[in-house]
Amino acid sequence: MKTIGILGTGIVGRTVGKKLAQLGYNVTLGSRSADNEKAKQWIADVGGTAKSGTFAEAARHADAVFVCTKGDGTVDAVKAAGDLSGKLVIDLTNPLDSSKGMPPPLISQYSNTHSLGEAVQAAVPNARVVKTLNIVNCEVMVDPKKSGGDPTMLLCGDDDGAKAEATNLLKEFGWNDVLDLGDITGARSMEAYVTLWVRVYMTTGNGYNAMKSIR
Amino acid sequence: MKTIGILGTGIVGRTVGKKLAQLGYNVTLGSRSADNEKAKQWIADVGGTAKSGTFAEAARHADAVFVCTKGDGTVDAVKAAGDLSGKLVIDLTNPLDSSKGMPPPLISQYSNTHSLGEAVQAAVPNARVVKTLNIVNCEVMVDPKKSGGDPTMLLCGDDDGAKAEATNLLKEFGWNDVLDLGDITGARSMEAYVTLWVRVYMTTGNGYNAMKSIR
Repeated sequence: MKTIGILGTGIVGRTVGKKLAQLGYNVTLGSRSADNEKAKQWIADVGGTAKSGTFAEAARHADAVFVCTKGDGTVDAVKAAGDLSGKLVIDLTNPLDSSKGMPPPLISQYSNTHSLGEAVQAAVPNARVVKTLNIVNCEVMVDPKKSGGDPTMLLCGDDDGAKAEATNLLKEFGWNDVLDLGDITGARSMEAYVTLWVRVYMTTGNGYNAMKSIR
Repeated sequence: MKTIGILGTGIVGRTVGKKLAQLGYNVTLGSRSADNEKAKQWIADVGGTAKSGTFAEAARHADAVFVCTKGDGTVDAVKAAGDLSGKLVIDLTNPLDSSKGMPPPLISQYSNTHSLGEAVQAAVPNARVVKTLNIVNCEVMVDPKKSGGDPTMLLCGDDDGAKAEATNLLKEFGWNDVLDLGDITGARSMEAYVTLWVRVYMTTGNGYNAMKSIR
């Protein structure tokens, strides 16, 4: 695996994309329009082989696609990325409903008995979707030591090979403890956990909080 | 605080009640009917000043009431306990919908934008409700070392004094790290977390799993 597409030019996509570029991957940052200003600035910052393009351009030659879009735009972005058959699709998104103030609940349709992870897998049924990384802030995603400890990263998905590939990427980011929650429906609990993360952030002020599974 | 009422004769109520009796509290185990067979066996097991009675009898002289009922019977049980005004009410319950196989989702009406903790507080508005302990199995509740580590216990509620009293009880159980999530709406995230706990149990087989907040 050498070439990675990122969907989304927000802080998550830019941070994860930069880390992947630093690790030696050829990274294309994808957005709705090819002349995205944040993507241009990101290329200037990252240098090397970093490129930008539309969602479809970012995904076309990618071995793996990181989905880093806002929750409510995620399914559309994944569909706009073209044919993702066989590709590893790593879903980092959270279906937070930010229209209701803090703390945000989940977008109702993706809560409890459904999830955005499942919706992503359903949107690209021939892709191999793995949900992971959504449970911490993006700086901790690519450097778990920033949490101040050795936290656990959760992961789920329907394809065991895809989860093994994702685990290797997580290890490159510095995650020593990866916990597989089973099939993609595990995304329900992983996305719900984020409401707890937000609570801890609100009550402690620590945006680098994470959790260690004792098991 | 010397006298404690337990609502519920299931494994949670019996385990927590026994621990409280061992700590020197006068404990009454409450159930729907006064001649509950499990309560009689519990008294024989615990000895000392342990008693049983109806929900209302268990609560009448109690300084603190532990709510240990099944999710779908919780609000009725709390209402049946009589006047809980001013009392510390510790809600350990989880609104799991076990009708749909494993893993259980939350009962829909108590998910995402609502919770059983809030429903308990609304049912007894003059009581001082604290949600806690629901995030581990009952053996770990009263002996957190059984998890194999030094896990974090979460807690939330609208009354700071009640949370301080609950924290003292948690310390008597052995919890060294108690994290206050704020008002009772924090129960939304604490109850949703339990679906993650169940996932970890299903994939690792470890029913003593817990989590440590890194913050």
